[in-house]
Amino acid sequence: MSHAANHGGKTPLAPPDSPSPLGLHRVLDPPGVLPQAAWRLDADAAIAPDEVRVRVDRLNLDAASYRQLRETYAGDPDKIRAAVLDIIATRGKMQNPVTGSGGMLTGTVEEAGPASPLGLRPGQRIATLVSLTLTPLAITDSLYRWDGQSEQVPCEGHAILFARSIAAVLPDDLPIPLSLAVMDVCGAPALTSRVVQTADVAVIIGAAGKSGSLSAAAARRAGAATVIGVVPTEAEAALLRDSAAGLVDEIVVADARDPVGLAEKVQQAGGPADVTVVCVDAAGCEGGAILSTRQGGTVIFFSMATSFSAAALGAEGLAADVTMLVGNGYVPGHAEFALNLLRTTPQVRNLFERRLAE
Amino acid sequence: MSHAANHGGKTPLAPPDSPSPLGLHRVLDPPGVLPQAAWRLDADAAIAPDEVRVRVDRLNLDAASYRQLRETYAGDPDKIRAAVLDIIATRGKMQNPVTGSGGMLTGTVEEAGPASPLGLRPGQRIATLVSLTLTPLAITDSLYRWDGQSEQVPCEGHAILFARSIAAVLPDDLPIPLSLAVMDVCGAPALTSRVVQTADVAVIIGAAGKSGSLSAAAARRAGAATVIGVVPTEAEAALLRDSAAGLVDEIVVADARDPVGLAEKVQQAGGPADVTVVCVDAAGCEGGAILSTRQGGTVIFFSMATSFSAAALGAEGLAADVTMLVGNGYVPGHAEFALNLLRTTPQVRNLFERRLAE
Repeated sequence: MSHAANHGGKTPLAPPDSPSPLGLHRVLDPPGVLPQAAWRLDADAAIAPDEVRVRVDRLNLDAASYRQLRETYAGDPDKIRAAVLDIIATRGKMQNPVTGSGGMLTGTVEEAGPASPLGLRPGQRIATLVSLTLTPLAITDSLYRWDGQSEQVPCEGHAILFARSIAAVLPDDLPIPLSLAVMDVCGAPALTSRVVQTADVAVIIGAAGKSGSLSAAAARRAGAATVIGVVPTEAEAALLRDSAAGLVDEIVVADARDPVGLAEKVQQAGGPADVTVVCVDAAGCEGGAILSTRQGGTVIFFSMATSFSAAALGAEGLAADVTMLVGNGYVPGHAEFALNLLRTTPQVRNLFERRLAE
Repeated sequence: MSHAANHGGKTPLAPPDSPSPLGLHRVLDPPGVLPQAAWRLDADAAIAPDEVRVRVDRLNLDAASYRQLRETYAGDPDKIRAAVLDIIATRGKMQNPVTGSGGMLTGTVEEAGPASPLGLRPGQRIATLVSLTLTPLAITDSLYRWDGQSEQVPCEGHAILFARSIAAVLPDDLPIPLSLAVMDVCGAPALTSRVVQTADVAVIIGAAGKSGSLSAAAARRAGAATVIGVVPTEAEAALLRDSAAGLVDEIVVADARDPVGLAEKVQQAGGPADVTVVCVDAAGCEGGAILSTRQGGTVIFFSMATSFSAAALGAEGLAADVTMLVGNGYVPGHAEFALNLLRTTPQVRNLFERRLAE
């Protein structure tokens, strides 16, 4: 049965001279890497049959990237503008070479290739849900409308979407900032909905936040018998009680970084959890999440502050037979699912509008 | 449905004055934390009804801990011995205060409390599979038999196992170093076996290593139609072909840190994978594992070099709808399962014996 490594005849990921769903054909330097890892992309406006060209109207720079630019140029708008223009012209994408980060964009579909699987039509207003770090981009207006004072960059230009890009149509019935805020965290409710089963006890750590409130609504929709919301302070508990009554069944005020304290309070509130969803961006929540979950249960980590080794070693040290999932930001249909949760769950909409107004 | 945080009447994790399955009653300083996080544990030889006392004969210090001690004391055996004795006497456990790491131990069961769920009987030779960092320990022989020249510490003393500790009986039919090497990685094959389904394509990254070869055997046992083993060099490929013929169906020589290169080779060898298991301790393998896995498939990360954010953002950037699991080192019955794989898979035993002989 054992064979040598010499194979042939099967379809490679990207046949020579044909477009790759991942955009490999747009990679100029170094050749052969993924677009995100590339130094320079080809932002040619002519599209391949499976690509989409978007007329860009706004970039939303990643917060870390914008902060680096503002600090480097001491807040000078001309220098910040020039730096962003230079990055985009040089790299064919908006990827800050210092932070490595990008952001996202909004725009209007200009042309969709006949073989594009994204289902977009010219004239649709969309937001990209994949990073600017892998999106071919060209700017044509010198960013003259941007004051350099925030990460919101009004602009004119074009961007290219690949077959495996992710874009969402901006709905007509919601303000754009609200839609963008929902799309920013839409992976969490979609995966929560996949994992939570009827009659489960679901624990949402960070339930008053954006991804947390959507995940709580998703757990309820999936048939959870009990949804326990964990928040760090009495003020957050009051926010849940007053602005989102009924979103969760039980509110627990606890420090999620204290495993024993958290698990005891969750147990008193109806736990342990069948499914625990970690939606707070604090480090050190792995042990508490694991200890709040029953043997055989599942923990979904959505916090980017999650430590892989703390999760793996923590479960082992607690002899905890729990399934631990890395929160994947992509689940097919995630944006539409999250927008519908917001539309049909007044408590979630209340919380989002309060956060956006802050 | 919404309630305030004030609850009562349910069973807390550890009723006052009764033993905790997690060993909370052994924590002296600071009170209320888990034993692993504690500065000092109570290593009293008298056991609670759900505890087990082990007569210790050997400590196996974590490699990072031993290296730190050897370097700090310039290899002086007397100073290294004194430092280890001081740590254990002060902390009630062998947790290196600089590295934070511990190790494991072997010994003989001396007394098992009537309420212990571990199923151990006096006289059994065991290894602990939870870290020394959370195991109450006392040493009585001044470590006089240890030369300080390796992380293997022959000793006399006692250790305490809690209800939720993990220990495995050392089998009579295998050399102890071989059993310990298997137990060290036994979580990987157990979780692989849970995830792989009949007729799956399984890709094992690092298939010639210890956890990789066991995972390959587990995938085969679980009914995988094709097992593809990825190795970094022709030498490792030759090792698989010569010492482990038939363990995998296809051998791929690829750099697992090159996503496009790896995925193309895996595809040519019969991929993409339904399940990919990452068993190499190199950083930067997340993208390749994700790209080698079909939409809807699963990646299990067993490497401690895995970056949580690289996995989460990588899947999103590739629009990859893959389930990503944090490799939990604990699955009930994992040690026995892995030892049986080794006993019944001559190729795995060959590979382990070659590694141990190196």
